[in-house]
Amino acid sequence: MRVIFNEEMRQVADDMDRMASAVSTAIRTAGRALLGPDVEAAQDVIDGDQAIDRLESSVIDQCIQLLAKQSPVATDLRIVVSTLRLAATFERMGDLSRHIAEAVRRSYPDSPLPPEARELFGKMQDFLNDMADRLVAMLADRDTKVAERIIVDDDQLDCLHQQTFQLALSDEWTGSKQQMIDLVLLARFMERIGDHGVSAARRVVYIVSGFDPSKDPKDLEDID
Amino acid sequence: MRVIFNEEMRQVADDMDRMASAVSTAIRTAGRALLGPDVEAAQDVIDGDQAIDRLESSVIDQCIQLLAKQSPVATDLRIVVSTLRLAATFERMGDLSRHIAEAVRRSYPDSPLPPEARELFGKMQDFLNDMADRLVAMLADRDTKVAERIIVDDDQLDCLHQQTFQLALSDEWTGSKQQMIDLVLLARFMERIGDHGVSAARRVVYIVSGFDPSKDPKDLEDID
Repeated sequence: MRVIFNEEMRQVADDMDRMASAVSTAIRTAGRALLGPDVEAAQDVIDGDQAIDRLESSVIDQCIQLLAKQSPVATDLRIVVSTLRLAATFERMGDLSRHIAEAVRRSYPDSPLPPEARELFGKMQDFLNDMADRLVAMLADRDTKVAERIIVDDDQLDCLHQQTFQLALSDEWTGSKQQMIDLVLLARFMERIGDHGVSAARRVVYIVSGFDPSKDPKDLEDID
Repeated sequence: MRVIFNEEMRQVADDMDRMASAVSTAIRTAGRALLGPDVEAAQDVIDGDQAIDRLESSVIDQCIQLLAKQSPVATDLRIVVSTLRLAATFERMGDLSRHIAEAVRRSYPDSPLPPEARELFGKMQDFLNDMADRLVAMLADRDTKVAERIIVDDDQLDCLHQQTFQLALSDEWTGSKQQMIDLVLLARFMERIGDHGVSAARRVVYIVSGFDPSKDPKDLEDID
């Protein structure tokens, strides 16, 4: 049984790796679309989201099959249940990348952001691009060190998120009302992608170590 | 085994009913806090959120115990896996209610909304209050008719959400920049509560009927 479990679990893990890499591409491409603005890149993200949704369905179906046929316990069970939640988290990151792309497409050929917001959103995107790389590496290597870096560094994104509000409230702001609405939504989408990255990192720490950092009282935060 | 499963599953179902009723209270109280503004109501929502988080942890732990000890298959397995996802959805609705309450507390004694936005947000809140009642009834009775009403009616909330942007862009708008930011965030939080209500309704349809409406291609939307 154990051998069969490992073999079938490896197939699920392969799909999770594919999902992480598809989400990583969506995050990067949505950022390129936003900072261009690049409407072709935006369309790529929108078109690519259904493939991420299909990967989630496939992972969920395989996990339910595994539970039904192998009745895993202990560590194996923890892996399957955490994988179910990890798949939902990645699917949501794909949705949020699509929302960013849809905002770009809506305002194209104009940018949804005024020029003075470009540098700040560039910094947020650099952060998300690094996180996207880490998510892929974390999952491929089940690397808790990388996972812990993702969890700890999230404060930096929250800080940049706060700065977007300060910019919108400052005299520096030249944007239209529509750009103010887009700035608030886009910054929120990007912050939520970061939150879901933290959530995914916590799942991987739990899978590998059995310790669930999201149960740490100080961490009972907005991560799921 | 089946008898033990039913007995233990009933305990999980009781916790889910408690969770639905706690979330329903959070949604209503957050709305009262927002439309007041009522800072005591806001504080109640913020203080109450950890109880919802604890219920989620309890449901997850019980589901994992059930999977480990009973190795459910077929319908029983579908119920346990769907319950795991349902608990995460309710926990998120609690977080979003807390975000609304935090915005009220931040701007108190002022309202986060200008007077002209009050009627529209009152309509959104009426919708969410009805949905909150339906969620409790749906879960208590495993009533797919109520679930389907929740899924179908969500368009009304999306329409009201769009109207909040139209209001902010209109000449009628008298709010400050900070109120514009709060309007966009608050409307987003309320729309997301509705999306999660739809997600919960779909889980219940799946638990009862085995049909997963979220797999319907036209429904591959932003619901989780």
